[in-house]
Amino acid sequence: MKTFSIAKSRRIRSTPYTSRIEKQGVTAYTTYNHMLLPAAFGSLEDSYHHLKKSVQVWDVAGERQVEISGKDSAKLVQLMTCRDLSKSKEGRCYYCPIIDDKGGIINDPVVLKLGEERWWLSIADSDVLLYAKGLAIGKKFEVKIFEPDVNIIAVQGPKSFKLMEKVFGQKITELKFFGFDYYDFKGTKHLIAQSGWSKQGGYEIYVENTKSGQDLYDTLFEDGKEFDVKPGCPNLIERIESALLSYGNDMDINDNPLECGFDKYVSLDSEIDFLGKEELKKIRSEGIKKKLKGIKIDAKEISVTRSLKIMDENNTIIGELRSACYSPHFKQVIGIAMINKPYWEDKQTVKIDINDQTFEGKVCDLPFI
Amino acid sequence: MKTFSIAKSRRIRSTPYTSRIEKQGVTAYTTYNHMLLPAAFGSLEDSYHHLKKSVQVWDVAGERQVEISGKDSAKLVQLMTCRDLSKSKEGRCYYCPIIDDKGGIINDPVVLKLGEERWWLSIADSDVLLYAKGLAIGKKFEVKIFEPDVNIIAVQGPKSFKLMEKVFGQKITELKFFGFDYYDFKGTKHLIAQSGWSKQGGYEIYVENTKSGQDLYDTLFEDGKEFDVKPGCPNLIERIESALLSYGNDMDINDNPLECGFDKYVSLDSEIDFLGKEELKKIRSEGIKKKLKGIKIDAKEISVTRSLKIMDENNTIIGELRSACYSPHFKQVIGIAMINKPYWEDKQTVKIDINDQTFEGKVCDLPFI
Repeated sequence: MKTFSIAKSRRIRSTPYTSRIEKQGVTAYTTYNHMLLPAAFGSLEDSYHHLKKSVQVWDVAGERQVEISGKDSAKLVQLMTCRDLSKSKEGRCYYCPIIDDKGGIINDPVVLKLGEERWWLSIADSDVLLYAKGLAIGKKFEVKIFEPDVNIIAVQGPKSFKLMEKVFGQKITELKFFGFDYYDFKGTKHLIAQSGWSKQGGYEIYVENTKSGQDLYDTLFEDGKEFDVKPGCPNLIERIESALLSYGNDMDINDNPLECGFDKYVSLDSEIDFLGKEELKKIRSEGIKKKLKGIKIDAKEISVTRSLKIMDENNTIIGELRSACYSPHFKQVIGIAMINKPYWEDKQTVKIDINDQTFEGKVCDLPFI
Repeated sequence: MKTFSIAKSRRIRSTPYTSRIEKQGVTAYTTYNHMLLPAAFGSLEDSYHHLKKSVQVWDVAGERQVEISGKDSAKLVQLMTCRDLSKSKEGRCYYCPIIDDKGGIINDPVVLKLGEERWWLSIADSDVLLYAKGLAIGKKFEVKIFEPDVNIIAVQGPKSFKLMEKVFGQKITELKFFGFDYYDFKGTKHLIAQSGWSKQGGYEIYVENTKSGQDLYDTLFEDGKEFDVKPGCPNLIERIESALLSYGNDMDINDNPLECGFDKYVSLDSEIDFLGKEELKKIRSEGIKKKLKGIKIDAKEISVTRSLKIMDENNTIIGELRSACYSPHFKQVIGIAMINKPYWEDKQTVKIDINDQTFEGKVCDLPFI
């Protein structure tokens, strides 16, 4: 496939680690929240194999934070998400679909409860800050909303636990999945969560002190030599095999959380008040009309840069493929697709055109097995 | 400078013209409103010279529309902008800073009044749709807000007038600057404005019928041969020489419209009600603390990918350079900079480091003369 260069400017912000990853051999970028996000360091497949057996350090500063604090902050955060946060605890992360008044998905951040009146929304690629501002102004909420200068370093892969223990000490091994706490690095406290956009395990370091974060970045590579540490980034192959959904790719504002399999994060039977609740109840009672599913295709390569039509054996359009890759694990192409009712049943035969050639495949459940 | 490729995916949307511009030799992309925006077709300087003497066709579909319609639509649009729209007319375009309740700039769209209860905001790169949704929900406004599938083709350059007359007939020559009307192309009506992101003159065609738009795109090249038509895109050199500001580059949410020289679009003495009005009045009475200015530097090249510090002769930091290029017209580097009080006076001497070398220059007014 032909490649095109990315035009840099102040509008597409660099991160505190950009000069480092460019020395380390980043080859491709995407943009994420108006910021550069590395997309490849050479071969995606090599990077995938390495991620699954060792440890990688990722510049994911593009996962920006929206900080919401003040008297009405909990009310505002709850208003925006269909997930019941009434029993949420400080020091915990919550995956929360943010929706509009029709139930359309606006973002799918991880919400960090920093205090009863202080929250971070660690966002996917859309300006949640503007949605929160609009709501707060309209509702006359007493809140402060801004983007703090937080630049996340992710440490991912099975050996991330050993590397982080070496850098931060034994205490960090006690941190539970989706928990966060503060850990010292040469006198500077860093908020660290056991989380990250891979299923290989690891941590996200929410760097607020840029200088210390850059030093930490270098230390992770120095101390990580014995674990074969390499620079990396969210890996297309690993994330699809793991069925980690990507906002803007697999779902957007035209989809609702029931269509995306987020049922357990949709608290329709709770007492809590959130936007779109009545609409989602109506959708639930009428039944959804489309559903996010996996598909497996008997092909050896694919590159998805836009939705691709999916047909059944009679050439009826039954859905669209939104993300896909060749999977070294399944030894075929796998992808994430929005499939229309009633075609979403497991084993439904599908046809798809890739580079003017027609391939066959099957619908399957997510996660892939 | 080292170049990096852009990783494509559904999240970074292609446009209806992407396959065409890739055949025509696009070499670099940026992203704009979660969409691919061409940034170069080979040499920027060659393209600049061509734009100033001939005609170019641009894929600027990334300039997305936010459609706001319904009973309270005028009220919502006015609430978001500091420009008085009370006397606005159907068929006219209005450059309108969108601001928050503190006066911070959220976007600087061109607003098209399609009807008393129907508006398009032709936006720069931020999710104005989410801000509008939040406000409308919070205020319980009766409005419908969505992104229509409009994909703009811009026709820019001095010969654009002749080319558009050839394609659309004599009637289009009567269209005034920042006016819009509907014109027929092979039986399909297209909304066309006399506007565009260059100072070389031209039109923007707001394509709603994708198939007709693609046909029109091809026709513009066919009919444009006699005018030496070429594919192009917003040109960094031309736009800086013309002092066309770029949201995210030259200004952002941390700047207010009085700091950016938008005084004539800030209707503080009107009767109208908009967010941030009292804050801006306070800022006006106290006086602004920084100001967007031009600078001219005695250098032959520059590449700005982030803010660069500007110092005075005593090495005091007096501001930051946000965009710049080598100008073939001025035969030196020119740029757009946010300069602190009291250093923004014309002819203030400045120093700046470019690639580890220090260059001298002067502050100047915008537009450059």
